[in-house]
Parts: sequence; structure tokens; C-alpha cells
Amino acid sequence: MVDTTNPEANRQLPIALDAMGGDNAPSEIVKGAVTAYEQYGIPVILTGRADAIGDTRGIPVVDCSEVIGMDDDPGGSVRRKKDSSLVRAAELVRDGAASAMVSAGNTGATMASALFRMGRVKGILRPAIATPIPNSTDTPTVFLDSGANVDCSANMLVQFAIMGAVFSRARYGANKPRVAILSNGEEPTKGTADVKETHKLMADLESPEFTFIGNVEGRDLMQGAADVVVTDGFTGNVALKALEGSLKFFIDTLMGAIGHDESTQAAGRVLFEQLAPTIDKLDPDNVGGAMLLGVDGICLISHGSSSSKAIVSALRVANDLVKSDLQEHIRAAIRPVDG
Amino acid sequence: MVDTTNPEANRQLPIALDAMGGDNAPSEIVKGAVTAYEQYGIPVILTGRADAIGDTRGIPVVDCSEVIGMDDDPGGSVRRKKDSSLVRAAELVRDGAASAMVSAGNTGATMASALFRMGRVKGILRPAIATPIPNSTDTPTVFLDSGANVDCSANMLVQFAIMGAVFSRARYGANKPRVAILSNGEEPTKGTADVKETHKLMADLESPEFTFIGNVEGRDLMQGAADVVVTDGFTGNVALKALEGSLKFFIDTLMGAIGHDESTQAAGRVLFEQLAPTIDKLDPDNVGGAMLLGVDGICLISHGSSSSKAIVSALRVANDLVKSDLQEHIRAAIRPVDG
Repeated sequence: MVDTTNPEANRQLPIALDAMGGDNAPSEIVKGAVTAYEQYGIPVILTGRADAIGDTRGIPVVDCSEVIGMDDDPGGSVRRKKDSSLVRAAELVRDGAASAMVSAGNTGATMASALFRMGRVKGILRPAIATPIPNSTDTPTVFLDSGANVDCSANMLVQFAIMGAVFSRARYGANKPRVAILSNGEEPTKGTADVKETHKLMADLESPEFTFIGNVEGRDLMQGAADVVVTDGFTGNVALKALEGSLKFFIDTLMGAIGHDESTQAAGRVLFEQLAPTIDKLDPDNVGGAMLLGVDGICLISHGSSSSKAIVSALRVANDLVKSDLQEHIRAAIRPVDG
Repeated sequence: MVDTTNPEANRQLPIALDAMGGDNAPSEIVKGAVTAYEQYGIPVILTGRADAIGDTRGIPVVDCSEVIGMDDDPGGSVRRKKDSSLVRAAELVRDGAASAMVSAGNTGATMASALFRMGRVKGILRPAIATPIPNSTDTPTVFLDSGANVDCSANMLVQFAIMGAVFSRARYGANKPRVAILSNGEEPTKGTADVKETHKLMADLESPEFTFIGNVEGRDLMQGAADVVVTDGFTGNVALKALEGSLKFFIDTLMGAIGHDESTQAAGRVLFEQLAPTIDKLDPDNVGGAMLLGVDGICLISHGSSSSKAIVSALRVANDLVKSDLQEHIRAAIRPVDG
């Protein structure tokens, strides 16, 4: 186990990085690790097939014989491939040899590795994926569960709210984050039975971790209406991917218009200067990935098409979260409840 | 009742338009009715307070003493306000005095008026709201249920698929529309219990109305991946509003960039020429509103902020749907099933 009595020692622990995960593995992953170490002094330990990884400029490698593919069945592959880069990364955290894990590989298998090897934080019913959604303010909205659990009870959603609030404070410095429930209307009477029950539980909770602001709607997700928005993993996945799809639609449309002829290309260059901050904000490579909250260790899930830049972002976020003692804060905030 | 044995007679029936519904009622509503009649020859009958409506340039008015407000409780207000413009519009359709109804008012009350006064098409478990989502192709994706029913059984979703397909053909000419279920992954094993059961029922159905193409994800909604996408009204509302919110985010961002200085304003003018077709496609005023499918009469729901242009669009769509014998096709396609 990590020695939590000595935070200084933990800060020296490397971050376990799955070198074989993602569409651009291992080359971009290794490149990201090297940059994070050389430019930001973040210690990294790579897991993966040493022969495929090649030169790591001194970054240590845990040689693993197996790889979990992007399309492998998550639960089954984690059970079968005990010497896979993903499972071994989770084991490094469990064994106190790494402070956090990062993977751009199979999302389901990353969750399963973390859950099976690290276990849950005591009292947590189910872990959830928290995704930062960029919006018109300076602070992204933490959105969870964005895909880990298709079915969620009201008590699970309340725990997601608490974990999301602790995460929002650790990651973005929101003091008493505004937490909302995603629903089909703002009134407490709107929503599924679980949403309505969650509303009741949250209103009664008087949590020291957050300010409950009631329900928000899908249109509020990119307006910064809340610091944290909770929902079940089915609705969360659909909503997040709807936003991704519309982003693609608008960028395709804009790029098509700009590409039309020389005058539109010149106009595009003029506008890009003004659009750059927003484009930067929306670029998945800058976001640093999603966070699996509720497992007993820090686990970052980077997107499958991660470049070395995305890996650097994820390693920096993981490093910041380790330093913020996120896990200790979650442990302290969670009061055991029934499922 | 409408005489369905004589379609020619039906075509002469006016469309009942709720003059009091929407943020810009009654002035923009009446203006829309006048334009639809004078420019397109679409006969209209207005319902509402004659004193508030004023001059209609000869368009008949059914004088009603009551108005259902945008925030009134839907079911209660429809039961209580029997002489409201909304309830009377639905009664005109029920009584064969109008071929369709259109309202930009309280959506829930519009649904309740249509359902209570017209009833359901025989065999239909529950009506659903079908919303056209603009995408990168020429044909919008018909998305239902976008908010009528928070909880939906698999059999309801199958009926939505059939109604959506009939609507897609009537409205956009899709011959054998591609129908998909919205889920958190493309595999048939993905989704809630109801989604998975719907997938099984749809795969077994071999409907003559549509081609079942399996599950689609949120990111496919604006890519034209399917002609019809079915989901429950909770997920549908969240997803649709997420798209609306991101549309607002991108337009705000783009307008902010263009407004920055004289050179960006000039660049904006150059690009707008290329962006115009997409902006037109996304403009709610051009879409003609959502359609309540499954009630025993054509009912169009225009958005609350409808201008006269939006009302003209809605009246034109309603007129086209009357001519296409949409309701007859739905009746023929629905086979009664258990809820």
C-alpha cells in the first residue's frame, strides 16, 4: 500500500503508464512519457512489451507479455490477460509502486483493471467516469457518470455528486462546487423515478462538499451552469457523444466554408486568431482525459486517439491530482450508504 | 369526424392554429397565418381571444375566453381551461372542422390537448414527439421520443420506430428509412434492459416500413447515420437539448470572434456566404416544429419563440402532411401489441 503518512514519499512515486494502449501506441505514448519527464519532471513507469517499446531514454519499463486490444471484451480480457500492460499498470498502483495509472487503451478494460486490482474506496457503491466538459467559462463542468454504469440508483448518483465535487475542487479549485442533476426539466418533479429520488436525497443532504443547485437540462452542459453534473452512465454517454458529434459537425462545416476558395481561406486565417482560445479549450489533447472516480487509486483514461501531447496532459493532470491528495479527500467525504 | 373516404374534401379543411401560444403571440402567430394563406394558399382557422387577435385579413377566428400559459401545469390546465385556444384547436380537429392543429404554446399542454381531445390512433400505446435533427446530409434525422414519455417500454419504442419511419417517408420521401436505436454503443449487447429488448424485437420484426440498422450513438445524431433514431423521452430530451446547447455555444463563439474588430467583421462577411446553407438548415424557424405522432390527428408543436416565419413553416409542414395522408399510413402500419 501507498504510505499515506508520508506525502513527500508519495510525490516521488512514478505514474504507471500503459505503453500499449491507444491507436498510436506505443510510439506516441512513450514520446509523451519522455516529454512529461524531461519537461515537467514527472516520473513515469511504463508497462508493455519491452521489444515493441524500444528506447525510452531511461524511463523504466515493466516488461509485460500481453496486450488488451481496443475491441477486447473488458471483463474477460482483464481476467484472462494477467500479464497485460493494463493489468500490470493497475497492480503497480495497488502495490504502492506507482502513485496513479494512465491508459489510452480500451476504456472498459481500464475500468475493469482498476476496479479488480485496486478495489473501490471504502463505502463507494460503484466507480464512475468523470469527464470535464469545456464551456463558456474558465472552469470545465465535471460530468459523471459518462459511461461506467448503465443503471444507477439514487444513492449511487449522490455518491457521484460527492466525488465529482471533491474532484472539481482538487482539479479546478472550485471552493464549494455547484452540483446539479441532469434531467428533462429544471423542476424537482421532472425526470425518471431515480432522478426525482436523487433530487430529494441531495436537497436533504446539506453536504459540506458542495452547493446543490437542483436540476439542469442538456442545454446547460456547455454553458457553465454548474461545476458538477451527475447522471447515469447511459444518459451520460449519450449526452457526451451528442456533444462530440455536434462539435464535429460544426468544425466540419466551418472548415468546409474556410476551404472554399482563396478569399475564404484568408478570412479563416483572420478569424482563427480569435477562435484559438476556444479551439484549444475543446481540443481533447489538452483536456487530459477522463477520471475514474471511486476506485482505490488515481486512474486516468485518455482518449483512444491520444497523441504524445494528450499523454503529457494526462500525466500532468494525474501528477496534480496525486499532489492534491484527491483520494484522501474522497475517502473523507464518503459516508457509507445502502445501494 | 374527418371524412377519410374523400381526401379532396379534407384538403380543403383549414388548419387550426392556436393564436395565443408562444412568446410572440398573438401578433407573430396571426402574421404567420396571413402569410401562409396569402402566399401559399393554405387555409387557416385561428383559435384565441378575438379582442387580442385584432385584424386577421379575413382569416376566421374561433373566439375563446381562456389561454393556457407557457408555465401552466399541462394536464391540469387542459382539464380546467375547456375554452382555451389550445383545447379548442384540438377540438376542431376532433370534430372534423380542421385537418391539423399547430401551436407554439406550452408543449405539455399541446400534447395533453391533442391526446385528451383527439385520442390515440388505434393500437398506439403512447404518442411520441418526433423532432427533425439537421445533419450533414440533405435529409434530417427524425428523432423520437424527444420528450413526451419519460419511461418507455420496448414495445413503445418499436411503435415509435414504425411511426417515425412512416413520418420520414411522408415528410422527406425516404423510401425505406434506416431506423436505429440510440444507445451507449453499437453492439446489440449495449444499453439499458429496454434498449436491448427493443433491439431484439426490431431485429425480429422484418417491418415493411423500414430497414433496421441496429444501435447508433449520440455522436451519430448529426451525421445522418440514420433516417430515424428512437429513444425514450428522457434520454431524447437530454440529447436534443445537449445539441441545442452546443449549437448556442458554437454560434456564440463564432459571433464573438467575428465581432472582435473591423478585420474580423470583414472576414465574417466572406465566410457567411459559405455558411449560409448550414445556418438556414439549423434555423428553428425553417424546421417547422416537432410532430406529435400517435394521436388521432396531425399535431405540430412549434418552438415557443416562434416568429411569423416559423409559423409559416409549421403551417406548410402541416399542410404537406395532411396531403400525404400521414395519419392513414400510420393507422395501416400499426399492429396492436401489448404495452
